[in-house]
Formats: sequence, C-alpha cells, structure tokens
Amino acid sequence: MNQPNHGGNLAWAAEIAGCPASSLLDFSASINPLGPPSSVINALQAALIQLRNYPDPNYCSLRSHLSNFHDIPGDWILPGNGSAELLTWAGRELANANETILLTPGFADYYRALTAFSAKIKAISFDIFSQNILTQIIPPADYSQTSLLLNNPHNPTGRLFRKSEILPLLDQFSLVVVDEAFMDFLPPEKSESLLGLVEKYPNLIILRSLTKFYSLPGLRLGYAIGHPDYLQRWQAWRDPWPVNILAEAAAIAGIEDHVFQQQTWNWLKSARLQLAESLTQIPGLSPLSGAVNFILVKTNFPSSQLQKQLLINHQLLIRDCLSFPELGDRFFRVAVRTEADHQRLLQGLTEVIKAQT
Amino acid sequence: MNQPNHGGNLAWAAEIAGCPASSLLDFSASINPLGPPSSVINALQAALIQLRNYPDPNYCSLRSHLSNFHDIPGDWILPGNGSAELLTWAGRELANANETILLTPGFADYYRALTAFSAKIKAISFDIFSQNILTQIIPPADYSQTSLLLNNPHNPTGRLFRKSEILPLLDQFSLVVVDEAFMDFLPPEKSESLLGLVEKYPNLIILRSLTKFYSLPGLRLGYAIGHPDYLQRWQAWRDPWPVNILAEAAAIAGIEDHVFQQQTWNWLKSARLQLAESLTQIPGLSPLSGAVNFILVKTNFPSSQLQKQLLINHQLLIRDCLSFPELGDRFFRVAVRTEADHQRLLQGLTEVIKAQT
Repeated sequence: MNQPNHGGNLAWAAEIAGCPASSLLDFSASINPLGPPSSVINALQAALIQLRNYPDPNYCSLRSHLSNFHDIPGDWILPGNGSAELLTWAGRELANANETILLTPGFADYYRALTAFSAKIKAISFDIFSQNILTQIIPPADYSQTSLLLNNPHNPTGRLFRKSEILPLLDQFSLVVVDEAFMDFLPPEKSESLLGLVEKYPNLIILRSLTKFYSLPGLRLGYAIGHPDYLQRWQAWRDPWPVNILAEAAAIAGIEDHVFQQQTWNWLKSARLQLAESLTQIPGLSPLSGAVNFILVKTNFPSSQLQKQLLINHQLLIRDCLSFPELGDRFFRVAVRTEADHQRLLQGLTEVIKAQT
Repeated sequence: MNQPNHGGNLAWAAEIAGCPASSLLDFSASINPLGPPSSVINALQAALIQLRNYPDPNYCSLRSHLSNFHDIPGDWILPGNGSAELLTWAGRELANANETILLTPGFADYYRALTAFSAKIKAISFDIFSQNILTQIIPPADYSQTSLLLNNPHNPTGRLFRKSEILPLLDQFSLVVVDEAFMDFLPPEKSESLLGLVEKYPNLIILRSLTKFYSLPGLRLGYAIGHPDYLQRWQAWRDPWPVNILAEAAAIAGIEDHVFQQQTWNWLKSARLQLAESLTQIPGLSPLSGAVNFILVKTNFPSSQLQKQLLINHQLLIRDCLSFPELGDRFFRVAVRTEADHQRLLQGLTEVIKAQT
C-alpha cells in the first residue's frame, strides 16, 4: 500500500506494525478521545430501525437543529457526507474563479477538490513560525476573478487566526471558503468562527465537521453554511441522499449534548498543555503552540523513521508530514489524547529517539 | 413542501396524510419488505464500536468480498455512498461525449447527474408497451462522441432487457453506463446482468445498489463495476471516504447471506404475481408485466388524486408518475410487499376508486 495522504489510515499502519488495526494507538487522526458520547450511541441504536427508509432529502430535522444551534436560518445550512464531501462542491465553486489562493502547507484534500475541477491554484507558502501569516495574502488585482480557500484553525500547524485578521479578506475575493473543521474544539468564548458573518457576506462559505469533535469519522458528517444560492446549486449537483439516517440522528444528539461539549473543552485545555510540555522535554523535539486538539512537532530526526519505529516497536501511529511538501521529514503531527495515552507516546518517542542517537 | 421527484419521501407524505411518517405504509419506494436481514443488523451492532475510526479509503475488505461475490477483480470495483453517488460521477463521465442517449420515461436522477455536468441529453421516448424497445436506439454517426445511459431492469416500467438485446449497443457508443440497481432481485438463472462482460468491454460501466435488496436505503450503499481507468478517475474526483463504516459492514454481511437471498427470490416470484393479478381485478387499473419488485399500473383515474386520497384516508403511499412526464397522471407505481400489505393496498385502492366513480 502507498503512503497515505491522510491520518487515520489504520489498515496501512497495521500492515507495517504487523498487528491488527484494533491494537494500534492512533495519534495520526485528530479525533476527540472522550467520544463518541453515550447520548450519540443511544441515538444510533434507536435509529437502526429506520434504515429501511430513505433519508429525508431535505434533512429538515437536522437543519432545524443546526439552525437553532448556530442561530442561522435553515436554508443557509447544507448537511454533507462529511465536510470532505462538501469540500468537493466547494472546490467546484472556487474553480469558477480564474485563480484560487491557497495557503501552504495545507490539507492535501484541498488540492484534490480544486484539481478535480481544474482550478488554477496559487499556493502561498508561508513561514509557519511567523506571527502574521494572513498579511502575506496579497489582494488580487481583479477581485471578481480570484477565490480564496482558508482553514481556521489551521491544519497541520494548529494556528488559530483571529476573526479580525480574516475580515479584510472578505472584501478582496469573489468567494472565500473557510474550513472550520476543528473550530468546535474551542469553547465559545475562544471561538474565532465566522459563522456570525455569513448573512452579511454572501461570498463567504463555511465548512464544519461533526466527525472529529463527536468521534464519528466512520459515520461521515459535516455541513456547509453559506448563501442559499450556493447551497441550492450544490444540492442540484450531488445525489439526493448524501447523509445517511444514522449520521443525521447522531448529529442531532451530539449538538444537544452540552455536558459532553463542556467535558471536551475542559479536557483539551489541560491535556494539550501537558502533552506540549512533555514533548518539549524530549531532546530534538519542538512542539508548536496551537489552539486545538493536535500538535505539530518539529523534529531533528526524520519523522518517517520515527513513525516506522513507533509502529513496529510500540504499535503507536503518528502522522508524518510527507503529504505537506514544505514540512516533509522535519515535522510530525500528533493528536491530543488522554494522559495515559500521552504516557505511552512519550515513552515510545523517548525510546525510539534514544535508539537513533 | 414540493412534490418529490423520488419515492420514499415519507416526510412529505406524512404532512399530507396528517400522521407521523412511521404510521405510513410505503409502496412508493421499492424496498425489499423481508429485510434488513438479521445478519446485517448484527453486523451493524458489532460495527458501532468502529465509528471512531476513519473508513479504509481503499475499502479493501468490501472490495475483496464483492470481488469474490461477482468473480471480478477488486480494482474493477468502486464502492459508493449509494449508487446515486456513483451516478454523479457516471454523469460527469458520460458528459464528456458530445451527446448522451437516454431512454424516457426514465429515473429523474439521470437528468440530475447529466445536467450537473452540462451533458447534451438526447432523450429517446419509447412506447412502454412495445416489445422492441432497444431497437429504437439508432446507432450514432460518430461512435466516439456519443454515450448511452441505460437502466436494466427498467424503472419505472419493470421491463427486463435481455443481454443479447444490449450487446450490440456496446459496439456503438463510446461509453455505456448500465444502472442495474434492481438486477439482484432476479435469481441467478434469470439474471440478465452484464457483469460478466465488463472485462471484455472497457467502455462498459455497471452501477449496482445494495440499498433496495437488503432494505437499507437509510444507510446508502452501492458500487460501480468497470475499467479501473474510469474508477480511479472517479476516486480522484470525490472525497476519500464516501462509504461509511456501517454501510461497509452491512454490505459484507448481506452479500454473504445466501439464505436471505433465496428467501427474497422465493417471496418475490409469488408476491408479484399475486399483486399483479389482484390489481387487474380492480376496474380501471391495468398493471404492466414486469420482472422485479415494483409494478407500473395504468390507471383511468388521475394518479395524483388516488395518491392523495390513499394518504389521507388509508395512510398508504403510492408513487405517482409526475416526475416521468410521458406517464404523468395516467400511471402510478407500487412496490411488491407482503400479502398482508397487499390486502391493505387493494382495499384502499378499491374504496378510493369507488368514491371517484
């Protein structure tokens, strides 16, 4: 099997580790370790009986719950089969411009979605240690012919851009798509989401995921928020029932589970700090400061070697950065997990690095 | 809510009937009433624990099972989020030709998938009572610039085309996509599937569904079979994880359940005959002979009126044919179900028609 472009490819990792996929401890996919919440599992169990029916093609119930949750009208919301499915249609929409601006390093799937519709991509390579990343985006000469795809919080750096940093860009591009797949890991008072601006900026589309926060990547669930003209067009492009009935039930249960949300915010604050500080203690590793549930780590040792040794000797999977060409072998990414999991990772990393020096 | 284009829209129907969707008896979606099989439900329960992992983007396990089931190499198989998702990419592929031939009446979603990619559609209207439908397709002057989208067994007529009727068409079009969503309702000895021909005809792509036979429309599951060059391109267009983990587990359990398959074939043979004969007894109704689990019925009474009265007075949902413009109000479609369900339908139809005459 080829080196995967995404985290969470356990089949690939299990082959290298020589163990069943279920024995691996996965730090490569940035999934909430506290979930799925029992409220969601209960909703899934109860919904199994409905599988003999087609989903409601208008997803009225889910859209109504999301509408209440975000205080945004229901026709400004389009559920999707994971935010990755919506990224496909965002890619097609962005490709209508003569040029699409993309920050790099960036999520490999952005290139897939844009290339699928022959977008002309202008990648802006930025210094990941810089304080002023977004000011490196130069306003285009022709506003009406240039689109922008942003990611906030940014993957793989974990950097959170402030709303005030993004705001000027909304006046400079014909279409701005902001992937906020990890924004819900920030408690409301720390959020820099642009959700409150969509009704004011008809050229702004936001992509959200429920997969990561509620630990359901196997079920696929995301949604887009933007002007109904865009969303109705996407709806006409794609098949009538992209979201399965169980994903719809899980989403409704999840967004109502305020206890789980608060637990996650409480856990993440201390767990990220603890993991980052411990990683700093290991010679040759420098974690970047970030805002969400993963940490990008600069390493003096080739990350693909670390990844391989951790798999073979410790059944631990970290995310190499080979799919981010600017980062390559000098970085790896790890998910924030529980303290017990962190101990296994730190011990594994310490041993593997000791063996290399 | 607008009149739906598809069967199975229970939310729309429940609003008209003034009852919960769960109280409706649905004859509009052509779903196997014997399912989902318990083997599938057990597999779903067991797979819930895996939802915290991403699906395998290569779907190796599912493709390997389908490969054994059909005796076709795994790289000639692409699973999808229902066959409707794969139809989207088939539509994009067909649209590469200067013109795409389509039989009409035909499934409304064909127009959606082709229109989404600006295909030039040439619809061939055929007499649904004719014996020689496919001979009405005239070979195009330029083989290399014309594609064909067929449906076998045909929806909504239920007509089964013979392999020998389709075979000549494979030499006359640059690409032939055959939607065999209902073919698995035919026992192997009656099947007219072209699956055995794909390796010989690289311009042939077959779409299959597991949704209808295993009663899982809420879970979404289908697959395409065709030359790997096509399937790899579709894979690059779409997101990496279109099929959720539960659908993958359900599919594997379903195709291994030979007892359920045999039960379904046994049930359908007598149940279709029984329903068709009973419908013939009702004055003003003439069911067409068909091969699968739904029956198209010619009616002397406007079908939209019958549908409305059946909903309001009997909580029964039949499929009007307004989304098939050639059929309109003179036809309706009903699924073959159990004998007890048929009795409710026949009684409802008799009463509603009596009230109209």
